[in-house]
Amino acid sequence: MTSDSDSNSDPATLADRVQDGDLRIHELEEHADYDTAAEARRLLVERETDADLEAVGDYTFDAEQADPNIENMIGAAQVPMGVVGPVPIDGSAADGEHYLPLATTEGALLASVNRGLSVIRSSGGADARVTKNGMTRAPVFRVDGVAEAAEVVEWVNDNVAALREAAESTTSHGELIDVEPYVVGDSVYLRFAYDTKDAMGMNMATIATGEACEVVESETPADLVALSGNLCSDKKPAAVNAVEGRGRSVTADVVIPGELVEERLHTTADAIVEANTRKNLTGSAKAGSLGFNAHAANVVAAAFLATGQDEAQVVEGANAITTMDTRDSDGDGPADLYASVSLASLEVGTVGGGTKLPTQAEALDVLGLRGGGDPPGSNADALAEIIAVGALAGELSLLAALSSRHLASAHEDLGR
Amino acid sequence: MTSDSDSNSDPATLADRVQDGDLRIHELEEHADYDTAAEARRLLVERETDADLEAVGDYTFDAEQADPNIENMIGAAQVPMGVVGPVPIDGSAADGEHYLPLATTEGALLASVNRGLSVIRSSGGADARVTKNGMTRAPVFRVDGVAEAAEVVEWVNDNVAALREAAESTTSHGELIDVEPYVVGDSVYLRFAYDTKDAMGMNMATIATGEACEVVESETPADLVALSGNLCSDKKPAAVNAVEGRGRSVTADVVIPGELVEERLHTTADAIVEANTRKNLTGSAKAGSLGFNAHAANVVAAAFLATGQDEAQVVEGANAITTMDTRDSDGDGPADLYASVSLASLEVGTVGGGTKLPTQAEALDVLGLRGGGDPPGSNADALAEIIAVGALAGELSLLAALSSRHLASAHEDLGR
Amino acid sequence: MTSDSDSNSDPATLADRVQDGDLRIHELEEHADYDTAAEARRLLVERETDADLEAVGDYTFDAEQADPNIENMIGAAQVPMGVVGPVPIDGSAADGEHYLPLATTEGALLASVNRGLSVIRSSGGADARVTKNGMTRAPVFRVDGVAEAAEVVEWVNDNVAALREAAESTTSHGELIDVEPYVVGDSVYLRFAYDTKDAMGMNMATIATGEACEVVESETPADLVALSGNLCSDKKPAAVNAVEGRGRSVTADVVIPGELVEERLHTTADAIVEANTRKNLTGSAKAGSLGFNAHAANVVAAAFLATGQDEAQVVEGANAITTMDTRDSDGDGPADLYASVSLASLEVGTVGGGTKLPTQAEALDVLGLRGGGDPPGSNADALAEIIAVGALAGELSLLAALSSRHLASAHEDLGR
Amino acid sequence: MTSDSDSNSDPATLADRVQDGDLRIHELEEHADYDTAAEARRLLVERETDADLEAVGDYTFDAEQADPNIENMIGAAQVPMGVVGPVPIDGSAADGEHYLPLATTEGALLASVNRGLSVIRSSGGADARVTKNGMTRAPVFRVDGVAEAAEVVEWVNDNVAALREAAESTTSHGELIDVEPYVVGDSVYLRFAYDTKDAMGMNMATIATGEACEVVESETPADLVALSGNLCSDKKPAAVNAVEGRGRSVTADVVIPGELVEERLHTTADAIVEANTRKNLTGSAKAGSLGFNAHAANVVAAAFLATGQDEAQVVEGANAITTMDTRDSDGDGPADLYASVSLASLEVGTVGGGTKLPTQAEALDVLGLRGGGDPPGSNADALAEIIAVGALAGELSLLAALSSRHLASAHEDLGR
Repeated sequence: MTSDSDSNSDPATLADRVQDGDLRIHELEEHADYDTAAEARRLLVERETDADLEAVGDYTFDAEQADPNIENMIGAAQVPMGVVGPVPIDGSAADGEHYLPLATTEGALLASVNRGLSVIRSSGGADARVTKNGMTRAPVFRVDGVAEAAEVVEWVNDNVAALREAAESTTSHGELIDVEPYVVGDSVYLRFAYDTKDAMGMNMATIATGEACEVVESETPADLVALSGNLCSDKKPAAVNAVEGRGRSVTADVVIPGELVEERLHTTADAIVEANTRKNLTGSAKAGSLGFNAHAANVVAAAFLATGQDEAQVVEGANAITTMDTRDSDGDGPADLYASVSLASLEVGTVGGGTKLPTQAEALDVLGLRGGGDPPGSNADALAEIIAVGALAGELSLLAALSSRHLASAHEDLGR
Repeated sequence: MTSDSDSNSDPATLADRVQDGDLRIHELEEHADYDTAAEARRLLVERETDADLEAVGDYTFDAEQADPNIENMIGAAQVPMGVVGPVPIDGSAADGEHYLPLATTEGALLASVNRGLSVIRSSGGADARVTKNGMTRAPVFRVDGVAEAAEVVEWVNDNVAALREAAESTTSHGELIDVEPYVVGDSVYLRFAYDTKDAMGMNMATIATGEACEVVESETPADLVALSGNLCSDKKPAAVNAVEGRGRSVTADVVIPGELVEERLHTTADAIVEANTRKNLTGSAKAGSLGFNAHAANVVAAAFLATGQDEAQVVEGANAITTMDTRDSDGDGPADLYASVSLASLEVGTVGGGTKLPTQAEALDVLGLRGGGDPPGSNADALAEIIAVGALAGELSLLAALSSRHLASAHEDLGR
Repeated sequence: MTSDSDSNSDPATLADRVQDGDLRIHELEEHADYDTAAEARRLLVERETDADLEAVGDYTFDAEQADPNIENMIGAAQVPMGVVGPVPIDGSAADGEHYLPLATTEGALLASVNRGLSVIRSSGGADARVTKNGMTRAPVFRVDGVAEAAEVVEWVNDNVAALREAAESTTSHGELIDVEPYVVGDSVYLRFAYDTKDAMGMNMATIATGEACEVVESETPADLVALSGNLCSDKKPAAVNAVEGRGRSVTADVVIPGELVEERLHTTADAIVEANTRKNLTGSAKAGSLGFNAHAANVVAAAFLATGQDEAQVVEGANAITTMDTRDSDGDGPADLYASVSLASLEVGTVGGGTKLPTQAEALDVLGLRGGGDPPGSNADALAEIIAVGALAGELSLLAALSSRHLASAHEDLGR
Repeated sequence: MTSDSDSNSDPATLADRVQDGDLRIHELEEHADYDTAAEARRLLVERETDADLEAVGDYTFDAEQADPNIENMIGAAQVPMGVVGPVPIDGSAADGEHYLPLATTEGALLASVNRGLSVIRSSGGADARVTKNGMTRAPVFRVDGVAEAAEVVEWVNDNVAALREAAESTTSHGELIDVEPYVVGDSVYLRFAYDTKDAMGMNMATIATGEACEVVESETPADLVALSGNLCSDKKPAAVNAVEGRGRSVTADVVIPGELVEERLHTTADAIVEANTRKNLTGSAKAGSLGFNAHAANVVAAAFLATGQDEAQVVEGANAITTMDTRDSDGDGPADLYASVSLASLEVGTVGGGTKLPTQAEALDVLGLRGGGDPPGSNADALAEIIAVGALAGELSLLAALSSRHLASAHEDLGR
């Protein structure tokens, strides 16, 4: 994993040259192959700190392969990966049995999700649907005042076709779905939403919107201030995403027979419903939250890490609502449990970003979802649906644990 | 990295046994060493899917070492890691020059942060302070109604000492700071806040609170429904965290001389302030957001991944407000720029969780912050301050890019 | 204002009969004219409490006239009303000079608004625009699960015309603008938005939506649970309204010459901008707020009360963002001030509700906006624009007061 | 209600003088008694508009009496007032049977609340408790940067006693409960909370905080920018109030026997719980709301208007959570219904503000709560508890209506 072309580009010499001020730390790739540059950088950091970067340097991909993903590379972070499942899913895009790879450092997470998936499997599998889809980018423009803002809004509403043409000229796959204007004083925000198919689509949406902005600027008095005006809203906890969605809005649900709730989860549908209502609904309400769930972000983060998604978009992935309800069982048995989780803004892709890196691509292969789908968008839809089922399993398992512990202590009380 | 003790525990045989229903997938560690179990699991997954898990299996740590962090392990996700800096920091805990390791798949992120750090460095470094500290856990109790709820609240307010004694009996380091009661109908939530020193502290807080709950249950009519009632609030976008903080509340700031803004960022303080106000303040306001920043979560996520933090807590890490303001320069030059980022709920630790894994521990060594600090808590404080400076650099760089692009096009306009 | 038809229906006898259990308190209007019934009710309440209801009974309208507005009437609350203005407004619907009647018990409010309006007047008046319009009602339906939810959503998206026909069959004026579906587990919410012209439109929207719901129920498997599912969202502080608007989204703005800021507001544009940024933007950001203003609700509440609007909708009226910015003055003078307020969800009407009551109708006459406008909707638009200008005046005045006080003390500091 | 002292101060002459520019409209009280001034102002407005202000001029109080509440008075808005109840309340401050006066223009509101109260009465009355109390004011200070901010926060935490002394020196009743600091960049917010006894307390809190701010400014480097920095947060929809409370946090609840639910509300506990969960909990969750209720603001607004509260504070009054749950009945009958409403930030007073005006004072007499309580604060507590019970009744009634309509149509379905 090292390289040495000539005397000036061995790692130690390169590190010397940076320390001498002869080279800058980000210029190393100009003087050596990528792996050597990374080694030189490790050497440099080791000299200037107390660190030994042996493990960081023991990575499995070619440094050059990671060039689109990182600068100033020194190696890799290695995060344990496991699998949960398999579980049958009846989705709009995902179908059949799936293992879900998860990478995390949070002990007990996979065990918990697996317990939930096991019960879902015994219940015949989960349903899942992508109910909305649109990657957004919302530039902010400066206008003279609200009189001008109203003109710009009117122009935009009348010229969506022209904006679509400009936007779609930059992409072979993406389609502009909608442009929604918002006015605040002398600022106009235009929220562009795109179908970006199997790409998560942030870059595609940004480039396409940039082109559309040029049309807005040339045809109206509006001046672009920032290509992102935070009504997108990317990597921030924002109601606009929780309400209107961003990326995929996806729901997974299942009905667990009452007997299974008792035998496998050691609790009752009623007890789970109570825990969900007091914790996930009322507790989150009192907390001023946009996340009405137990720990959906755990599954989202671990699946994102395993499959090469953008880890910072776990933020929007946490905009999820978990519902639990009792259902009458067919016979005389205990009540069945209806359980669902609805993720409003799950931003996933199976092409681009980190999905090409070796470990991430292999994880997508486990799911059978590496690369573009047929039809386009179906792989990303399927990934969203499978993650939703994983999140559902995590919710079920944690709520069952909480309520069974409660039941246990209730039983002790009775036994006194 | 493989192992073969006897004929029954070679990977292929183990995989056979799982496929035959003789073993369950999570039981493999009972029949072989951890690395062999992982290999058997890879084999199994490879057989049942189209995946080849060579890269996933090429990890650098001992599988057994990751046992506290993962179940059903198959290997590791490898995420490119780089470094940015160094940058001088004047913090309450962090001091001197620091390189910051970041792991991400988002191209251009490190370049952007590094550009910001370089300008901060030329400006003499950044200040940083942890202004609040407390890891929280908020159980929810069932009471008969509000009359009983009021009694429980009164009892809690009168008996914080007893709750402290119980809570602190479970931990050698943690200290109970406060217990805040909230009433909603027949539910009572008690938000316990702890100083968990150098640990992120979620587990410590949970165990300590569990013990305190037993006191509440034995001394009052309240019945515990769930040890977490979502007023904590863990891994959900919640106002309670954005307002009151969770983990560390930390701010970093810097004053950039006007000349540097022009020469290095190719823009002006005024232009950056405008972009920040229209995008990060007004745009986020209109979005119903708890995050008034450009992309703080990017830096938080990348630093968390590099240093073994809980990736799902990026959610709370995004509760950040960026402010930008002009300041009169001393002489006749252009206005200086005051820039700050305040992260309300940054949950970090330098012990426990994923911090012990080899690549993550090495990254903490780069920072000089592996393990417990002296005094206790100072390492986690320092980590929070350094991440805040990284986030500040990212904000500066992105806003400068947005406003310089704007200035550029404004200049073109003038040139027409 | 009293009446006595026969011996059984004089107030005292009626009160006796209620006390004897012979009549119920809400049945009095069946046994006497409306004013006598109110008098009997006052008598009854006076007997059973220590109250003397002389002032409450001294109202100026016919009790029968208030029948659509109240039950169990005993009289009226009288709230002091004043006027502010006149101020020239350049709106899309409001034009020319307007006095604005305000009813309140908050001393100094009218003086403050009037000061602001006076400065706006000296600056040539304010611009105002309704930038969006739509009264919403969002029923919630139960479905079997997300698979069925997805079918319902698809059906709705394909059948907006049928829903429009049903909805509009119930109203001569209202027009269905849009239906937006939202899925959470086994609940489907459909947010219907209507142009309700000069009516505030809540009732119109409810009735029309009720009719449309019957179509949904007959054509899809969805079962209506509640005609309002809180995604409307009426009389609750909700991001959906702050982001997407409800009723009118309206902005008013003005540029105040720097000299006027100094002479009349005794401060500078810079000082006002600072106060606005630290208080209304950053302070509200930290508070987890949907209201980024100083006291817009004061003007909204007082104008609502004077003109017969629904006082509980002050809640949505507070979803307002105030922006303040400096603008270069033409000459060498001090910087000008750009000031705006954008109310996202101002729900107003000039027909229906309380607008017919005598004092309220007279207040609408002061504005020249009683009854339906020509074209329909223009009176309600104009009312929204005028209230927005009033709110702008209140923001200006309060921020100027805050910053001039600050300047004053700053000057003292310099004088020391 | 008119007056004429000399030839220069009859209404017509005064109106002439304003039109001639000889007098300004707000100076009329300097040249005539208050009622004459109001008459002159009406005359002026009538001349300049098409309005006839006869009803507005027919008010029942002395204009001078309203001087603390209004400027530029022209008369009064008259809003129909009715009563609901009586209902037995078991509160911490309110006790026994109470009629509740409500002023509104929303038809059916009182009928709905009364239906709810009637069922509560048949269930033995409602419990109510004020669970938290504190009127807040949060000034914002400018500091040099976060290093200085941290010093200021430390000083504040160490000097609460000095701040209390300064604050309480301005008030005979108010008590400083707590000061909570928040840091955002170079802004420091201090949230002062006071027990203001029977006053709503905004003015008291503002004056006391102003005095405390002088201590902060003299002892620390912090400079006051605005006495209100929006973390208070007054008349804005803000999570800080919904989570931490402002004014009174008050809950009312009741258990309705299953038979009563069926006979009087024509529905079942299960159906009401379903409507509450899908609408008030899940629907509001999806709406990004701080209000998890059906229409609590209606009752708050109407009670505020009747009793002289600040109408703009209906905004905070809407921060309410309604819970509904089934409870096992004692015998074999249908399940009982537990119903509660928790208002986080109900700002009420029985002294000051609009409470002294005649109709409002009479309304307080109906409640037996005019003026200061014994002990101080008990009247405002009682008012909060009674309003909470009114809101509970409104919630019960509306949810019952929704669910019985649903049941009705369900029965129809079965009958087909």
